[in-house]
Amino acid sequence: MGVWDQYTPELLTDLYELTMAAAYLQEGMNEEATFDLYIRDYPPDRGYFVLAGIEHFLELLSQLRFSEGSLAYIQSIGQFTPSFIEYLRGLRFTGSVRAMREGRIFFPNEPVLEVTAPIIEAQVIETLALNVIQVETLMASKAARCVHAAQGRGLIDFSFRRTQGIDAGVKAARASYIVGFSGTSNLLAGKIYGIPVFGTMAHSYVTGFSHELDAFMAFARAFPENTVLLIDTYDTISGARKALEVARQMNLEGKRLRGVRLDSGDMVQLSREVRSIFRKAGMENVLILASGNLDEFRVEEMVHGGAEIDVFAVGTRMGVSADAPYFDIAYKMVEYRGRPVLKLSSGKRTWVGRKQVFRHRQDGMMREDVLALQSENLHAGEPLLETVIERGRLVRPIESISDIRQRFAHEWRSLPPEYRKLKAPSRYPVHISPALEELERRVSDEKSRQEIGR
Amino acid sequence: MGVWDQYTPELLTDLYELTMAAAYLQEGMNEEATFDLYIRDYPPDRGYFVLAGIEHFLELLSQLRFSEGSLAYIQSIGQFTPSFIEYLRGLRFTGSVRAMREGRIFFPNEPVLEVTAPIIEAQVIETLALNVIQVETLMASKAARCVHAAQGRGLIDFSFRRTQGIDAGVKAARASYIVGFSGTSNLLAGKIYGIPVFGTMAHSYVTGFSHELDAFMAFARAFPENTVLLIDTYDTISGARKALEVARQMNLEGKRLRGVRLDSGDMVQLSREVRSIFRKAGMENVLILASGNLDEFRVEEMVHGGAEIDVFAVGTRMGVSADAPYFDIAYKMVEYRGRPVLKLSSGKRTWVGRKQVFRHRQDGMMREDVLALQSENLHAGEPLLETVIERGRLVRPIESISDIRQRFAHEWRSLPPEYRKLKAPSRYPVHISPALEELERRVSDEKSRQEIGR
Repeated sequence: MGVWDQYTPELLTDLYELTMAAAYLQEGMNEEATFDLYIRDYPPDRGYFVLAGIEHFLELLSQLRFSEGSLAYIQSIGQFTPSFIEYLRGLRFTGSVRAMREGRIFFPNEPVLEVTAPIIEAQVIETLALNVIQVETLMASKAARCVHAAQGRGLIDFSFRRTQGIDAGVKAARASYIVGFSGTSNLLAGKIYGIPVFGTMAHSYVTGFSHELDAFMAFARAFPENTVLLIDTYDTISGARKALEVARQMNLEGKRLRGVRLDSGDMVQLSREVRSIFRKAGMENVLILASGNLDEFRVEEMVHGGAEIDVFAVGTRMGVSADAPYFDIAYKMVEYRGRPVLKLSSGKRTWVGRKQVFRHRQDGMMREDVLALQSENLHAGEPLLETVIERGRLVRPIESISDIRQRFAHEWRSLPPEYRKLKAPSRYPVHISPALEELERRVSDEKSRQEIGR
Repeated sequence: MGVWDQYTPELLTDLYELTMAAAYLQEGMNEEATFDLYIRDYPPDRGYFVLAGIEHFLELLSQLRFSEGSLAYIQSIGQFTPSFIEYLRGLRFTGSVRAMREGRIFFPNEPVLEVTAPIIEAQVIETLALNVIQVETLMASKAARCVHAAQGRGLIDFSFRRTQGIDAGVKAARASYIVGFSGTSNLLAGKIYGIPVFGTMAHSYVTGFSHELDAFMAFARAFPENTVLLIDTYDTISGARKALEVARQMNLEGKRLRGVRLDSGDMVQLSREVRSIFRKAGMENVLILASGNLDEFRVEEMVHGGAEIDVFAVGTRMGVSADAPYFDIAYKMVEYRGRPVLKLSSGKRTWVGRKQVFRHRQDGMMREDVLALQSENLHAGEPLLETVIERGRLVRPIESISDIRQRFAHEWRSLPPEYRKLKAPSRYPVHISPALEELERRVSDEKSRQEIGR
């Protein structure tokens, strides 16, 4: 229905992946290549990334094949030979993949995914890998900042209405749950991932009744176990007084009002007044939720300002990662036929060859990472890249979202506070091993001489 | 496969849409309501919006129903009665919809969609309407700025790898095509919408060969009719000289080099040098493409700087609408049971009742819009909202992408240049009719007295 049922992973690709593949095939050039997926640099004011999207990518990769419909379309483009179409028909991913686990915290230049396969297979999955892994990593990284800002208060994802499409909305709910949100308003994500769902009422509900109080009473009748009232449709304090009336009525029936939601105004001040209204009535356990243009900065402001808010519902700005709506993420070939390769054009150094990331801790806290050649086998430090696909097959089960959530919680506790700061965080040290430095220099010099003549 | 095959429109919703529906149902409250979808305000430096996503929304709406799988999930949440589930099982959209056409240029506070239906039906589609219409409008509006900046040069969408998910990527390709891009690298969008696809090679392709020249020659052999060479892997000028060698070789075989692509460095300067290299060889018709972190600002800079670039491939920053990754888009109830309704909390005025947008032109150019009550029937000006669904049925066929593209082209020509500017554009006048002003004031005063006691 609509367009979504036509989304197939083999076409989550760019035309040039296929033109390159066709050129390779014609040259009989399909030996083993290794590609790294990594983020080149931090966006402003970011101090870490949270890895997500790996499991979804692995699932897609291990099942990758070109349907007849996709082949017919590719043929219709008019640039490919019948023998290339035939090749695509038989294409399966037969290579191996090493990856960091979802929920890991990582830093620029660290490969989070390494693909080694015949070059055509490793190449055609580029767009798939980038898109699938970036979108969730983007949102998990943003949502973790909200978790930091909330300082233990609850968080709920309210972003679905304004995410960039349905896929982004589902991924925002999953990614924010991984980093510690309590749940989401998003029913589709609730169904697909088993994430707890939350929701109450909109302003339109309140305006649909002739009187605000009638709207509140009707809702309490419909959901006596789970009544949260939106109290700012006309005026937050008047709304709170009406909610108190409802709460008293509920008490008479042996029920209790679960909470109220504020959605506008000076929420530090208003939340304190609302708490006071309920406290005086002996109901200080009525939850106060806040929503409306929230992000990590506003949450931190409110927490520091002494807001009496128990749960923050964070929407749009988290769901689109508003301050950093994309990462400088890349999928680069680092080796072909055992030969380390690089491009020179970027002016920046890029790290060739097959690598490993070693993480060093001190008293349980993350201290520094070392990016080294895989062959160096540095025994100090925890190696973060693990083999997950071998000869096209998953070597471990797809991880559950609760396992990933636990891993993140553990990882998060070990990240020193100076890297978590919302503004001007410290730069976590990622050292390059001398052997890797040396290899990069050698390849770079050789290519400069050979291709540019200097 | 993966997660996308589980995307169903009836669950593109937030839990609160269903809790409200359940409360309405229990109260026996399901009379006719009217909701408006509109953007409240401009993001910084924006002067207009381009409407897209309407056709997809209409398709989804006219087919909306809850599958058994979705109903089972909703039941499992544990908050809903069997009779509510039964109600959802029978739910169809039976109301009417008025909308502006896709490809229209519009402005803040102008409803682009108006839904009139029993309140439950009109309410539960809120998230669907917002998400589906925002994502494409966001991208069409951003892409139109690139079209403005390119001043007639070609544009291609290269954003798929870094859009916020697969849905956003497909929508970015469609939306940018609507506003005049020549095509996309995105195969999925090419297949679904019949958009022309473009693509050549990556740096990894070049580094896969021992020598850059070998890589170029192999590509020319594979695609003799369509060879575009990426020349900046090691050094753009050295790359251009090798491309010239390839072009000469192709000429000997009666073929010609179609183009070269630059992806880094000072592209104004480099493009001029590259043009000069080909011009001296009598090949000034070799196309020069540019890519790499482009957006409307960089395209404008290059065009003004005298870059010799024929085609700009615009990627990430267009595909995520980087300067404005969301709009302040809302879906608000404006009438229930014939009674105009509003909320007061925002502090901003919101326009109640059923409305029409009248567009006035002068010498063919857009001059001003008037937002009025539908009942005013102002005869001057073109009414922009048209009935598209009546009693749940589409009253016109879904429009083709080429019709929408044509409409935009026409609309675009009539938008005076002061509104198109990339920075500090003029504010297009949208007047509020006196009758609408008066109605809003009356309802607002009445609600203030009634609910806040002032």
